[in-house]
Amino acid sequence: MITTILRRSLLDASKPATSINALYHQLAPATNFRAPAMGGVRDLSKMTFEKKETSVEGNKGSGDGGKADDQGNKGEQLIVSYWGVKPMKITKEDGTEWKWSCFRPWETYKADLTIDLKKHHVPSTLPDKLAYWMVKSLRWPTDLFFQRRYGCRAMMLETVAAVPGMVGGMLMHFKSLRRFEQSGGWIKALLEEAENERMHLMTFMEVAKPKWYERALVIAVQGVFFNAYLLGYIISPKFAHRMVGYLEEEAIHSYTEFLKELDNGNIENVPAPAIAIDYWRLEADATLRDAVMVVRADEAHHRDVNHYASDIHYQGHELKEAPAPIGYH
Amino acid sequence: MITTILRRSLLDASKPATSINALYHQLAPATNFRAPAMGGVRDLSKMTFEKKETSVEGNKGSGDGGKADDQGNKGEQLIVSYWGVKPMKITKEDGTEWKWSCFRPWETYKADLTIDLKKHHVPSTLPDKLAYWMVKSLRWPTDLFFQRRYGCRAMMLETVAAVPGMVGGMLMHFKSLRRFEQSGGWIKALLEEAENERMHLMTFMEVAKPKWYERALVIAVQGVFFNAYLLGYIISPKFAHRMVGYLEEEAIHSYTEFLKELDNGNIENVPAPAIAIDYWRLEADATLRDAVMVVRADEAHHRDVNHYASDIHYQGHELKEAPAPIGYH
Repeated sequence: MITTILRRSLLDASKPATSINALYHQLAPATNFRAPAMGGVRDLSKMTFEKKETSVEGNKGSGDGGKADDQGNKGEQLIVSYWGVKPMKITKEDGTEWKWSCFRPWETYKADLTIDLKKHHVPSTLPDKLAYWMVKSLRWPTDLFFQRRYGCRAMMLETVAAVPGMVGGMLMHFKSLRRFEQSGGWIKALLEEAENERMHLMTFMEVAKPKWYERALVIAVQGVFFNAYLLGYIISPKFAHRMVGYLEEEAIHSYTEFLKELDNGNIENVPAPAIAIDYWRLEADATLRDAVMVVRADEAHHRDVNHYASDIHYQGHELKEAPAPIGYH
Repeated sequence: MITTILRRSLLDASKPATSINALYHQLAPATNFRAPAMGGVRDLSKMTFEKKETSVEGNKGSGDGGKADDQGNKGEQLIVSYWGVKPMKITKEDGTEWKWSCFRPWETYKADLTIDLKKHHVPSTLPDKLAYWMVKSLRWPTDLFFQRRYGCRAMMLETVAAVPGMVGGMLMHFKSLRRFEQSGGWIKALLEEAENERMHLMTFMEVAKPKWYERALVIAVQGVFFNAYLLGYIISPKFAHRMVGYLEEEAIHSYTEFLKELDNGNIENVPAPAIAIDYWRLEADATLRDAVMVVRADEAHHRDVNHYASDIHYQGHELKEAPAPIGYH
């Protein structure tokens, strides 16, 4: 049976969309929204979902699915404005509403601060040495540009650090599709790295607001680095991962310097941003120093993952042959 | 204190790498591997982790981190072969080992088969009509090529269906970095869609092995579609998401045809692939038909998400302004 919804909102200029949330709650047609099946308890937080409304447009949901099969797409429910998906309602342990849409309570973690910060992969082959010196040579212009403004430095460097994981994960995703083969979990592992680095950025931009010329620099650097890394990864993932491994070693160093500046009072140890407290499950009274500590631990984990990935290639294997270190924080 | 590890394995040709797992277990230096903090119970499955070994190389882990700060990177632990990351040990509800590295037990779900399969967004604007007819025009060459070989058709189409989510997610990720702004969860939502479509491929390739010319076709199509969609998304995300919405409507139709062929016996209703049974939590004796049912439900959810995303743009908003439908299955 054909039903039509009033042609509202989509082309209706008379109704200015002030609050988008209010707008789409008002427009949302009947759609039930399920929890991703995690089988009951996950974390101490919980989710509640909108009940399935019975559509006022007499929409016949194709219930069991089986019966509907023979009708194909006949008896369609015609829709013009398609605000079909209601948001999850997620609450924290303390019952307050979860305010982050970029990560969910069960994706937060306590960083492992016991990780060895001093591991260093000795470059023994020519490509490794090249990767090592490329990274080293980037060190002094960076020092020159930022001097000792480590908050700003951290923020800027994270805009670069979040690139490799996304590039690598994307290339492995498309490779998996082209070759009809499993990825060994490496797509997820690399995308997790990219998202984790992006969270570092979301954290530091709360304490150091970028100036206009810094924004411009980020755009230029991303344009160059994205293409360079994409090309580099296509040519030699072995080299690309090794280089990231060394970049992470440098990151650990610069966060260590950051901590020194905080300890000797050159940088004020302000309270940690709210997003950092929720993402790393820090104490409510955590400070910037605590945030830098966990970020540095994250970088040490990424160092391990990338050197490891490079070594898998050195062993003449493909990443998919070794189970990926998913959830390695 | 400087310690060196025997220069083993990395350049050692005398030790052929037969089993990579055996190899890296043997080579893995001491690294403790933590659970991503999910706060205890998650799902009925559980993970156990390698205990932290005390390194034979006398590696001094920088324990609390605080003490180590002042030492910077001095006293490094030099490492040549970097098999630093041990895999998680994950077990299923029944205690057997979890055999999938591309997804974890708490990422599996029961598909919502009650979703309305007949919703159709009526193209009212010119771009919408263009998107609609572009998709429609792709229908007949596809029908012509595959005839009624729906297993093969599904497999081939999923190699294309997994592209848009990855492209959109990647672009939003880099945009978030460039602009120092939150994503509203849409990066995750789109990457989830891409991974979900890839799982469809992993499922169907178990029942329909691609022939050489089909592999060649996939490579060619991906090369064209990836670039076209990337460009399209950069020019108009509104148009790109609408087109995907219509692609998903077509996918629902073709899976409905697939089910008909299964029901009238033209395609043998073989047992469902093991990966499908674990990913969608199907019964142990589930069949291909059950797998097609849940895949079709997934496509209906992607249809909603993409039409919704397009409508957000139509309302003059950016995706980040509306909370993303993360975990909408």
